[in-house]
Amino acid sequence: MLSSSWWCEQAWLWPGRVADRVRLDVTDGTFTAITEESEAGDAHRLAGFVLPGLANTHSHAFHRALRGRSHQGGGSFWSWRETMYAVAARLDPDSYLALARAVYAEMALAGITCVGEFHYLHHGPGGTPYNEPNVMQTALAEAAAAAGIRITLLDTCYLTGGIGAPLDDVQRRFSDGDADRWAERALSRAGGPHVRLGFAAHSVRAVPADQLATVAAMRPQDPMHVHVSEQPAENAACLAAYGRTPAALLVEHHVLRHGATAVHATHLSDSDIDLLGDRGIDVCFCPTTERDLADGIGPAKRLNQAGCGISVGSDGHAVIDLFEEVRALEMHERLATGERGRFDPEALLDMALTQGHWALGWAGAGQLRVGAPADLVAIGLDSVRTAGGADPAATAVFAATAADVTDVVVGGHPVVRESVHLRVPDVGHALSEAIGALYG
Amino acid sequence: MLSSSWWCEQAWLWPGRVADRVRLDVTDGTFTAITEESEAGDAHRLAGFVLPGLANTHSHAFHRALRGRSHQGGGSFWSWRETMYAVAARLDPDSYLALARAVYAEMALAGITCVGEFHYLHHGPGGTPYNEPNVMQTALAEAAAAAGIRITLLDTCYLTGGIGAPLDDVQRRFSDGDADRWAERALSRAGGPHVRLGFAAHSVRAVPADQLATVAAMRPQDPMHVHVSEQPAENAACLAAYGRTPAALLVEHHVLRHGATAVHATHLSDSDIDLLGDRGIDVCFCPTTERDLADGIGPAKRLNQAGCGISVGSDGHAVIDLFEEVRALEMHERLATGERGRFDPEALLDMALTQGHWALGWAGAGQLRVGAPADLVAIGLDSVRTAGGADPAATAVFAATAADVTDVVVGGHPVVRESVHLRVPDVGHALSEAIGALYG
Repeated sequence: MLSSSWWCEQAWLWPGRVADRVRLDVTDGTFTAITEESEAGDAHRLAGFVLPGLANTHSHAFHRALRGRSHQGGGSFWSWRETMYAVAARLDPDSYLALARAVYAEMALAGITCVGEFHYLHHGPGGTPYNEPNVMQTALAEAAAAAGIRITLLDTCYLTGGIGAPLDDVQRRFSDGDADRWAERALSRAGGPHVRLGFAAHSVRAVPADQLATVAAMRPQDPMHVHVSEQPAENAACLAAYGRTPAALLVEHHVLRHGATAVHATHLSDSDIDLLGDRGIDVCFCPTTERDLADGIGPAKRLNQAGCGISVGSDGHAVIDLFEEVRALEMHERLATGERGRFDPEALLDMALTQGHWALGWAGAGQLRVGAPADLVAIGLDSVRTAGGADPAATAVFAATAADVTDVVVGGHPVVRESVHLRVPDVGHALSEAIGALYG
Repeated sequence: MLSSSWWCEQAWLWPGRVADRVRLDVTDGTFTAITEESEAGDAHRLAGFVLPGLANTHSHAFHRALRGRSHQGGGSFWSWRETMYAVAARLDPDSYLALARAVYAEMALAGITCVGEFHYLHHGPGGTPYNEPNVMQTALAEAAAAAGIRITLLDTCYLTGGIGAPLDDVQRRFSDGDADRWAERALSRAGGPHVRLGFAAHSVRAVPADQLATVAAMRPQDPMHVHVSEQPAENAACLAAYGRTPAALLVEHHVLRHGATAVHATHLSDSDIDLLGDRGIDVCFCPTTERDLADGIGPAKRLNQAGCGISVGSDGHAVIDLFEEVRALEMHERLATGERGRFDPEALLDMALTQGHWALGWAGAGQLRVGAPADLVAIGLDSVRTAGGADPAATAVFAATAADVTDVVVGGHPVVRESVHLRVPDVGHALSEAIGALYG
């Protein structure tokens, strides 16, 4: 039995209120007692404002190698994808581990204690399976362990290079040939204390309609994610081929079902919005990626009003900062509608806390309450960014950045202390080394 | 004669290229020699990527007191303005100095070495002039000196509470009664080595058309700024009262003339865009403020193509980070058009460098070349945000934040070293104190 205690100047207690002088007792990775207005005593002190751990619902770890290398120049999502594929072509299990370890350590420094990796880089060059068929996602699980965070491995089915189009050279690495073989491999995986398993269809571009049922046949209690309507071209191709929108097609084939997560959901029709809301389907927005790729602004508020839960992901990792992500979601709503206050700070925080963990199969995490996993994130309220605020929740959402995270605890174990990662001592150097090796 | 030398691993030499191992010799605040591929010798070493100083073209220093206190909740620009006025009502010369000193120190830490303060808080409560009529802007000049940065005091004419509407209680502090008395006071000011003087009309809302000529009569070589078409309501009122758009009205009365700066320019007609371009009028965008206030996305690319130079400002200071500001300008263009690469990194950097200084009357500053003011800003390329990039200019624009600024030199004097302000030792504390006093 491993016990620890933590004392916070201010903490964000479930279901969403600021409490002062909070002591949290932890046994075996779980909160066993939470006491307000307490003395610190022998507990580890956390200054500032303490949140539960943040969940990054949508990640492609290897896209981090494109930051500062792919954002300029003209073109669209589609030309960006060419650059991204060039990196994908170079990765092997060792370089994938080194890169993902550094990226997940960057996430830990940003207060992210749980990541959903939308993983489709399954096989070797040309599509040749590795001897250990899941070695690439084993590397991701190892990387998360090394960085001290939780991970949900969303094993992604990717079969075609577009609706009715063959795979290109790089895309062959992504494919198991058909959905049955994908399912067989994906079901052969094992989780672990810090690893949950989930499933995904890449998109209607990459999984033919007649194979969606196989993807949908995975256990309904496990996470199921799918990219939906990221670009108008995807909608046009889907309508042409199937006579319905991506959302409608995915609902019809039960990939999008109650509790599943539609990622992006940028270009939806009014009936798509009603459909997703009526079915209790959740949505993951990735605002910093969606603006970087010129994808557009999705209808977050309307989806939420229709009944969809909302989580956020840093996706292409142009930025790894969930404070910026939820802030951008609200700011994009303001730009699109001309109205302020589309979501209140509590709702925005909850996207990165309860909602994100829920979408990744860690229900009950992301909450400071007895029985929940003992993940804590302290942000400073005295930096040049955060100083002068009144309400810590509003300050977190409207002023803080990842650079304000000072301390991170995962399952009762310290991972970041005074803005230094305790297991990856120089994360910037680890990123430079891992990324440099790919271009070397 | 005061000399110093600086040696940079990589530097952004005018007119816009990365050079390696650059030695910059400084005498009396000016670059006297710039040598590439040099040895460091006895020069002060600056690691990372060294830029000229950044210019923040549009600031209302006291709005910093609203960060984390005014962004939530519903409403629009107009309801936000009520909150802002409540702060304005409380300020006096001492509290204005304390707040502005802290805010300008935050700017220095972000690599901003020159600020344009759009100043209209001229008089005491109820509009009673202070014994020293310009004491409020004297406080701003002192604050800039204490923070170690340059300032352009844009003395702003503010006479009405809307077109044909009287001033409200708070607004009386802003007004000199009429444009002649405004001009008399504004012309009585003195500059200084770190202070340039400029002029502004607040907007068509605050200066009646028949008094614009008085504002326009200021010396044409001095900066002239004006808020233009920040909200649709301003356009509607202007069209109703004058039968023309704010841009057209301001051009007609010569406030907007060659070299003048139109701030915001969010809601322009096609003919407004042509008009501003044809006259060689420049534009200052404030993207992080414009999204916070739900103002909308202005036509930056179209204005630039029409002939307008572009600078950026942090305006309401929801964020003080010019890297984020130019990045947001590009990202908003992407969201509005569905195209990437609307501006290249060189053009985006130049907005915060040459263009910003030009708009503030410091022509020739913001450039690493012999004869220019010796302002230097080093950003780290090894942080979790910036590590892994290839092109330093692209990394600065697409990955860096204000937190990556490590060293700042103004006029040959170090102001920030290893991310610590040398004259305001704890800027977060200074902000907390100054802002707390206003709400206490």
